[in-house]
Amino acid sequence: MKRWLLLGFSGLLLGSAAGAMADEGMWTLDHLPVKQLQQRYGFTPTPQWIDLIQHAAVRLAEGCSGSFVSADGLVMTNHHCANACLSQLSGNGHNYMADGYVAMKQEDEPKCPDVELNQLDSITDVTAKVNAATNGKSGAERIKAERAIDSKLEEQCVAGDPKTWRCDVISLYHGGRYALYKYRRYQDVRLVFAPEQSIAFFGGDPDNFNFPRYDLDVTFFRAYVDNKPAKTPQFLKFDPHGPKAGELAFVVGNPGSTQRQTPWIQLSAMRDDMLIPFYGYLSDLRGVLWQYGRAGAQQAKEAQDMQFGIENTLKVFKGWLETLTNEGFIEKKQKDDAALRDWIAADPARRAKYGDPWAELAKAQQRGKELQDRYMMIAGGRGFGVGTQLFADAMTLVRGAAQRAKPDAERLPQFRDANLPAVEQELEAKVPVYPEYERTMMAWSMEKMRQILGADDPFVHATLGKQSPDELAKTLVDGTKLADPAVRKQLWDGGEKAIEASTDPMIVFARQIEPTATKLRKQYEDEVQAPTTKADEAIAQARFAREGTSSYPDATFTLRLSYGKVVGWKEGDHEVPPFTDFAGAYTRATGADPFKLPDSWIKAKGSLDLSTPFDFVTDNDIIGGNSGSPVVDRDGHAIGLIFDGNIHSIGGDFTYDGSNNRAVAVDTAALMEAVRKVYKLPRLADELASGHL
Amino acid sequence: MKRWLLLGFSGLLLGSAAGAMADEGMWTLDHLPVKQLQQRYGFTPTPQWIDLIQHAAVRLAEGCSGSFVSADGLVMTNHHCANACLSQLSGNGHNYMADGYVAMKQEDEPKCPDVELNQLDSITDVTAKVNAATNGKSGAERIKAERAIDSKLEEQCVAGDPKTWRCDVISLYHGGRYALYKYRRYQDVRLVFAPEQSIAFFGGDPDNFNFPRYDLDVTFFRAYVDNKPAKTPQFLKFDPHGPKAGELAFVVGNPGSTQRQTPWIQLSAMRDDMLIPFYGYLSDLRGVLWQYGRAGAQQAKEAQDMQFGIENTLKVFKGWLETLTNEGFIEKKQKDDAALRDWIAADPARRAKYGDPWAELAKAQQRGKELQDRYMMIAGGRGFGVGTQLFADAMTLVRGAAQRAKPDAERLPQFRDANLPAVEQELEAKVPVYPEYERTMMAWSMEKMRQILGADDPFVHATLGKQSPDELAKTLVDGTKLADPAVRKQLWDGGEKAIEASTDPMIVFARQIEPTATKLRKQYEDEVQAPTTKADEAIAQARFAREGTSSYPDATFTLRLSYGKVVGWKEGDHEVPPFTDFAGAYTRATGADPFKLPDSWIKAKGSLDLSTPFDFVTDNDIIGGNSGSPVVDRDGHAIGLIFDGNIHSIGGDFTYDGSNNRAVAVDTAALMEAVRKVYKLPRLADELASGHL
Repeated sequence: MKRWLLLGFSGLLLGSAAGAMADEGMWTLDHLPVKQLQQRYGFTPTPQWIDLIQHAAVRLAEGCSGSFVSADGLVMTNHHCANACLSQLSGNGHNYMADGYVAMKQEDEPKCPDVELNQLDSITDVTAKVNAATNGKSGAERIKAERAIDSKLEEQCVAGDPKTWRCDVISLYHGGRYALYKYRRYQDVRLVFAPEQSIAFFGGDPDNFNFPRYDLDVTFFRAYVDNKPAKTPQFLKFDPHGPKAGELAFVVGNPGSTQRQTPWIQLSAMRDDMLIPFYGYLSDLRGVLWQYGRAGAQQAKEAQDMQFGIENTLKVFKGWLETLTNEGFIEKKQKDDAALRDWIAADPARRAKYGDPWAELAKAQQRGKELQDRYMMIAGGRGFGVGTQLFADAMTLVRGAAQRAKPDAERLPQFRDANLPAVEQELEAKVPVYPEYERTMMAWSMEKMRQILGADDPFVHATLGKQSPDELAKTLVDGTKLADPAVRKQLWDGGEKAIEASTDPMIVFARQIEPTATKLRKQYEDEVQAPTTKADEAIAQARFAREGTSSYPDATFTLRLSYGKVVGWKEGDHEVPPFTDFAGAYTRATGADPFKLPDSWIKAKGSLDLSTPFDFVTDNDIIGGNSGSPVVDRDGHAIGLIFDGNIHSIGGDFTYDGSNNRAVAVDTAALMEAVRKVYKLPRLADELASGHL
Repeated sequence: MKRWLLLGFSGLLLGSAAGAMADEGMWTLDHLPVKQLQQRYGFTPTPQWIDLIQHAAVRLAEGCSGSFVSADGLVMTNHHCANACLSQLSGNGHNYMADGYVAMKQEDEPKCPDVELNQLDSITDVTAKVNAATNGKSGAERIKAERAIDSKLEEQCVAGDPKTWRCDVISLYHGGRYALYKYRRYQDVRLVFAPEQSIAFFGGDPDNFNFPRYDLDVTFFRAYVDNKPAKTPQFLKFDPHGPKAGELAFVVGNPGSTQRQTPWIQLSAMRDDMLIPFYGYLSDLRGVLWQYGRAGAQQAKEAQDMQFGIENTLKVFKGWLETLTNEGFIEKKQKDDAALRDWIAADPARRAKYGDPWAELAKAQQRGKELQDRYMMIAGGRGFGVGTQLFADAMTLVRGAAQRAKPDAERLPQFRDANLPAVEQELEAKVPVYPEYERTMMAWSMEKMRQILGADDPFVHATLGKQSPDELAKTLVDGTKLADPAVRKQLWDGGEKAIEASTDPMIVFARQIEPTATKLRKQYEDEVQAPTTKADEAIAQARFAREGTSSYPDATFTLRLSYGKVVGWKEGDHEVPPFTDFAGAYTRATGADPFKLPDSWIKAKGSLDLSTPFDFVTDNDIIGGNSGSPVVDRDGHAIGLIFDGNIHSIGGDFTYDGSNNRAVAVDTAALMEAVRKVYKLPRLADELASGHL
């Protein structure tokens, strides 16, 4: 359930949550809900426990979570979080994505071209420093000041060693608090074990976001330092028995983003102006990829990564739309907003302090609606090469050259010095490029742009010229040399001069787009995002003043702890039990994709304990980004591996309902049994059991 | 702008419109707004004028409008209304859809396999008879009684000659009035002239629903009777000069459906539960067809008809969603509804008479939401073979056999005796079948069904079995013999026995589906449609009682007259003039599709009067179904040919805004100039000029 970030959503819609009830909340590790944990579960986390959890958790920079499960750098995450690595390592007749990968010896662990792990080293409160720098500023000036202080703090934190450290200033409680997150980077990440796609994602799209489930959605990586397994003394001991029903369960991971305290006026604009159009856009793309993949096994492979991401996103959108059109939810939000407005209106001092941020929001949203199509298509890249490698690389090169020519503080966050290693790793990675796939995605995107912006749009005219999108895509993809990492590296190293001198058609094309994209991004930031942020902060501050601070901040793809228990739920008049077992998977199998068990499982059936628990659900409050998070017990042992939420969890972006919102995990008992008996990999099973290689 | 009817919408959402203002309204020919016409335009239609308009207008049974423009059966309609005929006649190296068709001699006029024209003969008020039959009945009993009386009245009207006559009982003002519409059928319809697709649909999808336009969206047919041109003394004289700016203009045609008086509670359910999901469904299908068509010229041809329809529908949906999420519109609707509820509540007699139909609606809608996915997928056919020929034929054969075994009054309307000739014509038509296209559409539809209903749905299990949708589609399409019209005829003629005995895999498949589909249809009718209709009628009746009857009924795909004038509009701060001319088309041309002028136009450029008006706009109140309608002046002469509405006209389904809602038409001056000078067809030009062959 990796949720794709929607350009323009992230960073816009943060607020604060107050009055958390039930097992609600995604808590930062420096402010845990100690009282609730004590009251509800009689558990008090010790400093040692918290320290262990923090350092055993890792974040996959591309958008997932994971954990160290041995002292020798062994990392547990989801199969679907390793899609890119598995595809990129395939070739020469091997398809590791479909067939899985087993490193029988340590020497067989191949390096993933493009995986980076971040381990949270420390959290430092920098609220006072950020406020001092931005105080009294607004609009573009404020954005600039905030970028400058962030950049300065991050640079100091990295201390000249960006290969080892990554630092991010994070706005929590929507500007109520700023914190500096310092991470240890691991860029040498190798593949240890992945099962077949057909068992990792058994039930496929039909079962995604559903339960009962029978998925072994796991991949084990290993972090290396100096070509040797990393030393990771802070790791989660692997419990080969998994949890019991009712047991207290923690999830530690990086939930992507939530909008629980966002005012209704913003949510309704998001629904009508962003979500519904993008739902259509992605549905259309889903159809293209479906038909593309039917041409043959090679084409199916080329399309499948994107296809999976889109299926997933569409399910999320459906759930969001259900929540955002639910009359009860809308009424509650409107009432909440009205109560806060009344509270401000009731006092002249408050009126003077907060103003009318709702009116500001309405204005910003109207402007957003006017600018949005051009912003998304041109600056957001939806109009050129959604899902492509070559166009994306060209834009990174052209934009990166221009950005690096500026002082660090004025750059887009992605291109600050501290983040350049990640960009460079991606550009230099040897990843396969599929020309027909690239042509298709570019042609489709450009046709979409022409359709949405209109053939009379001067920018559309200038970029497409008199060629059809299909012709232009062919010219660009067939003419470019960017598929070669050496060419990319040369252009990157050559900076602005190399970019200006390049006659590579894809670079020329990106060069033509970049000035307009930059202008649009700036316009959108100044006229939509900055006033929205300002109004949003005023609302968040008023809410704080009224409701106090015993709450958790909306999710920000940073490390959070949620607590809960292993428990099923009631669906209509029918109880859904919390566990499935191996026997159930054999019953559910049909022999046809996506319900086809891999041969390894068919063969191993006789040797397996069929009563082994397979997957389970808990009422932990999680969200996209938590994929790959470990489920941890009160002793700090791994008892499960989060890989999904049920269908009710999707509305969790906007509201948490403990009665039916469930996290879905693989049981550690299933992992142990499968590694030993299905995949016959004692090396890995022993490492999990002992905690050492 | 042919709008596809959405299953489940039609018939559900009819109401009445009161207080028509500006040039608003789609008036029935027996109740014209004589006073408004006199006041606003100083025009009083004479009985002769009305009689001429009525008999010169024709309806294309598949969903368009047209008109007789000579005494010898010459019919003017849109190119996009003739798509099916042009595709079906193509083959053997000819592509009449792309390249156009010119019958130089009368003997060269080929018969369209599947076009039927209906000419309105008479309208008879049957309100008293219908009310007498349904009085006091509700639910399933009421549906049965209404079907019975409709069937009886229609049978009497056809008087044993269903090949010549077609009769429909139409519910107007949502049950305020019932009228029997009697039509003369023309089933021998031949092709006289069609231009190239590239000029008929110049600007393609990007320009669709936009203006300025440069489209020659015309096809001329000829109706035949006994193998001779039909005698049609009531025809519109063709004005070779077209209209002037500001001139009074009438549009006579068959607007499909509107929901202007539908309560908000119904519109919001329609938006959230039907429109948004179907928007995603069709976007997905659009992507499939786009990629399908890229495989080659043949595939592009196979997909284009469906593709065009979908592009069109998606634009409509986008416009609908804009209206249905517009805060101002929602407030107005909610206020209107509240006022009517208050009016009922204010008087005990009214309370007793009307009850609380809004509460009934809420209940029916909740039920609709629960049933809808299965209903749409299984009974509505979206889950098996959307866009296919073979599956649709199989369902028609299986359903038709079962339906014909029942008494006429108990059948679905499509299978009443009076309508069988149309069904038979379609089944026996020699239309090409494209196996790969059929397999693709079936596989995609079935995958969609599995996705939406879930792999655990017992019906999904039973119909798909253990095969993948792709495998099953291949088995069915490759195994069936239904592509052969003789096989279809045999099965049709053989009735239930032949169907039961058939081992044709597509028939076996349809036989397996039909009982569940029938059950679901009945359940949806009883539990959703019948209570909705009843509540809706109570609301409509209350509205009548409160607001009087000087209004037009919501559209019902029956003949209506709208009045207006040739006039541009203001888009933002910029005036859109009402006319374009030939010169503009040459300026706009880029040489690349969809802005590529055909060779005929490039060659003819020197000989053309470039100041000839091309397309124009009027503020007539039209809607999908009006495609192909003539624009008529006060003398009853044809001055234009409707082929589109501007983007603001899409909201016209729910509300008419005279300030920017515009109808888009081809100027008759453009038609005359093009027929004479571009297509060098003096035979047709002379017939248009003289009114005779």
